[in-house]
Amino acid sequence: MSSDEFRPLNESSLVEYIKATPALSSKLGDVSQLDNLQIKEVGDGNLNFVFIVTGPSGSVVIKQALPYIRCIGESWPMTKERAYFEATALKEEARLCPDHVPEVYHFDRSMCLIGMRYLEPPHIILRKGLIAGIEYPLLAEHVSEHLARTLFFTSLLYLTTTQHKRAVAQFCGNVELCRLTEQVVFSDPYKVSEYNRWTSPYLDKDAEAVRKDNILKLEVAQLKSTFCERAQALIHGDYHTGSVMVTQDSTQLIDPEFAFYGPMGFDVGAFLGNLFLAYFSQEGHADHENDRKTYKKWILQTVAETWNLFHKKFTALWDEHKDGPGEVYLPAIYSTPELQQLVKQKFMNDLFHDTLGFGAAKMIRRIVGVAHVEDFESIKDAGKRAGCERRALDFAKMLLKERRKFQEITEVLSSVQQLHS
Amino acid sequence: MSSDEFRPLNESSLVEYIKATPALSSKLGDVSQLDNLQIKEVGDGNLNFVFIVTGPSGSVVIKQALPYIRCIGESWPMTKERAYFEATALKEEARLCPDHVPEVYHFDRSMCLIGMRYLEPPHIILRKGLIAGIEYPLLAEHVSEHLARTLFFTSLLYLTTTQHKRAVAQFCGNVELCRLTEQVVFSDPYKVSEYNRWTSPYLDKDAEAVRKDNILKLEVAQLKSTFCERAQALIHGDYHTGSVMVTQDSTQLIDPEFAFYGPMGFDVGAFLGNLFLAYFSQEGHADHENDRKTYKKWILQTVAETWNLFHKKFTALWDEHKDGPGEVYLPAIYSTPELQQLVKQKFMNDLFHDTLGFGAAKMIRRIVGVAHVEDFESIKDAGKRAGCERRALDFAKMLLKERRKFQEITEVLSSVQQLHS
Ligand SMILES: Nc1ncnc2c1ncn2[C@@H]1O[C@H](COP(=O)(O)OP(=O)(O)O)[C@@H](O)[C@H]1O
Ligand SMILES: Nc1ncnc2c1ncn2[C@@H]1O[C@H](COP(=O)(O)OP(=O)(O)O)[C@@H](O)[C@H]1O
Ligand SMILES: [Mg+2]
Ligand SMILES: [Mg+2]
Ligand SMILES: [Mg+2]
Ligand SMILES: [Mg+2]
Ligand SMILES: [Mg+2]
Repeated sequence: MSSDEFRPLNESSLVEYIKATPALSSKLGDVSQLDNLQIKEVGDGNLNFVFIVTGPSGSVVIKQALPYIRCIGESWPMTKERAYFEATALKEEARLCPDHVPEVYHFDRSMCLIGMRYLEPPHIILRKGLIAGIEYPLLAEHVSEHLARTLFFTSLLYLTTTQHKRAVAQFCGNVELCRLTEQVVFSDPYKVSEYNRWTSPYLDKDAEAVRKDNILKLEVAQLKSTFCERAQALIHGDYHTGSVMVTQDSTQLIDPEFAFYGPMGFDVGAFLGNLFLAYFSQEGHADHENDRKTYKKWILQTVAETWNLFHKKFTALWDEHKDGPGEVYLPAIYSTPELQQLVKQKFMNDLFHDTLGFGAAKMIRRIVGVAHVEDFESIKDAGKRAGCERRALDFAKMLLKERRKFQEITEVLSSVQQLHS
Repeated sequence: MSSDEFRPLNESSLVEYIKATPALSSKLGDVSQLDNLQIKEVGDGNLNFVFIVTGPSGSVVIKQALPYIRCIGESWPMTKERAYFEATALKEEARLCPDHVPEVYHFDRSMCLIGMRYLEPPHIILRKGLIAGIEYPLLAEHVSEHLARTLFFTSLLYLTTTQHKRAVAQFCGNVELCRLTEQVVFSDPYKVSEYNRWTSPYLDKDAEAVRKDNILKLEVAQLKSTFCERAQALIHGDYHTGSVMVTQDSTQLIDPEFAFYGPMGFDVGAFLGNLFLAYFSQEGHADHENDRKTYKKWILQTVAETWNLFHKKFTALWDEHKDGPGEVYLPAIYSTPELQQLVKQKFMNDLFHDTLGFGAAKMIRRIVGVAHVEDFESIKDAGKRAGCERRALDFAKMLLKERRKFQEITEVLSSVQQLHS
């Protein structure tokens, strides 16, 4: 059992691995104390195995990628090299935004294994908090900070084209994960596929309408091309509310195994789109104790704040670093405040439309594609669930097709409320 | 003098090199006959050394890259690795379009040396033919063929995303040449730069107007970002009329050392933009024997035919390969003739606007940037030259800013004639 050979770990072989790895064992206790490690497999995600390991003086999280997709099984192979890209992206994001990314303690490329900070209770997955109706007052502030910093500093607004092209080339290696997104986000929902599912029979006609909507498919083609071709920044690639762990004070982005150089709007849109999914699911979680009306307002307010704060922070970074290494907008060319304002407006306006388009696409795929969200899945009554899903779907289709008509996030929110009053 | 070490060749060391290289010497004659090779250095280009070597039974062209820019000297260093990307692109283009690309006989990476087919007389550089007023009846047919095939088959319309990302990563290595384009096409003309020049004092105000035109600079920023970020297809990267060698029957594309995965419109635009430069220079070449009026019509007709034939061939390839390996427009999604028509229209319309934008940017940089074109430079009378250049510049500025208003190439040609009647 040589250490440069891959082997899937179970709870007992993991103990041996940890004992042999000082970067991990040192977080848990003295060598003498490591005989009674507690190990719990908690992977509720779709792809990987995640263990929480607890020793006398602390805990660590161990994540291992296997050469297939966990929730489907060995019949859907998937490169285990994704762990390398996840570790690389985690470290890069932690460098750029240490407050909102768990520290990586250890990475073993041949074992496809990452050891990282345990996000201790009361951290929970944001999606579960949204289903429970919990408000997170700092969420927009923190997520916008993470988005602004990770996207700005890996874009050509900050990097030289030399640095950028080197990083782009490196992340081209993560093609298998990109291909998974291409298939499940941009293709399968728009065609007949064995993987697709929806709340049947309620949404049978709705799913068919998606497959027959020429304008929608025209717009999706453009988004897919942009996803495949445009190396704008290092994106997380899976920025939904299941990749965020939260408490009232802390917001942590995990699971960037889909990371590559792609369009910024894909990350921003994924987050906002998943907040909209949470919004449309609330009616299914309302009961006589809580009609969720106040909570729905909070979600929409969080959408608005996330975009507006992202806009503010991103353009502030641009101002701060306008004489920095970035080479697309040279200060000698974009030399007057008026012109600087003009280019920022145009850039942010385009990014807004990308965000709405990608966000809408991510919503649609969660309703008629392979992977659904707990926000809806946890609504037991199928008829009620279908009603929530249909409203989300109708909104998403409108948003994808009409996105260029919106100039401000408040206009988008008005249209949500009109559709769903 | 080991063979895996770089050394610049001169006419005598080149003879030794050829004798030791069967792939080259076999084209020239028997071993016994190689003592009297004729060697002529003909590099009239800006960057490299080009030798024509002639033996008793044939000729070859030897091109060597030195670690600086030839026309400027050692004060402007430039990676000699460009020869690797040129050889790789030449071979790929020759595979896709063998009729219009010289065969590569030999490539020596450590020597940065390419041996290729000698394009024998009467082949001349197209730009010189355009200055001399020679019509090439097959030019549009051939160039559109080369553009359509090289761009289509290296795009996601034909490649899988796995193949595409691998190739993108490889060509990210050609970053230094990309950076040269970024600087001399998209930056220097829009700022004060020691390298810029123009026909002074005539165009002093015009050059200043370019530097002060906010709308122009806003549009150029977007083109520059697209150039840096969008890996749409393997582009030649230097597709001007000095990279085309022609006879009445033959059209050959040489010199793809700037090749990388970039926006298709950059190549198509470079060619059309350089035809427009030729057009606007004609008045400077008119004399009492030839007023060049008929020739000007031929140039505009060639612009129209090149675009229209490119459009036809490119969409025909798309139709032919719609069930091929390409994954962006899956046949199961884009399943009706109506929808297929719709996506092609949108794609070609966007490509048309990119083409006009990049073409215009390439024109502007040839009038107020570092590298000028012989079309204008060969007009002795500076006042007359400045008049031609100003009309070209005014047209290019309009085109860059208003490009989205044009739907057909004929509309562009009408606006040329209005401006210049
Ligand atoms: N650093 C961590 N601290 C605490 N829990 C974690 C941590 N990383 C992952 N988890 C838990 O494991 C689950 C799956 O992790 P995730 O990285 O999303 O895996 P997958 O790639 O399979 O989706 C998360 O939903 C979360 O509950
Ligand atoms: N295969 C060839 N056959 C004949 N002449 C060639 C060939 N390749 C280059 N030349 C001549 O050499 C000149 C410079 O070649 P080019 O490849 O454009 O070099 P550069 O990269 O320096 O611009 C061309 O303009 C042409 O006159
Ligand atoms: Mg996950
Ligand atoms: Mg994951
Ligand atoms: Mg050349
Ligand atoms: Mg060249
Ligand atoms: Mg656009």
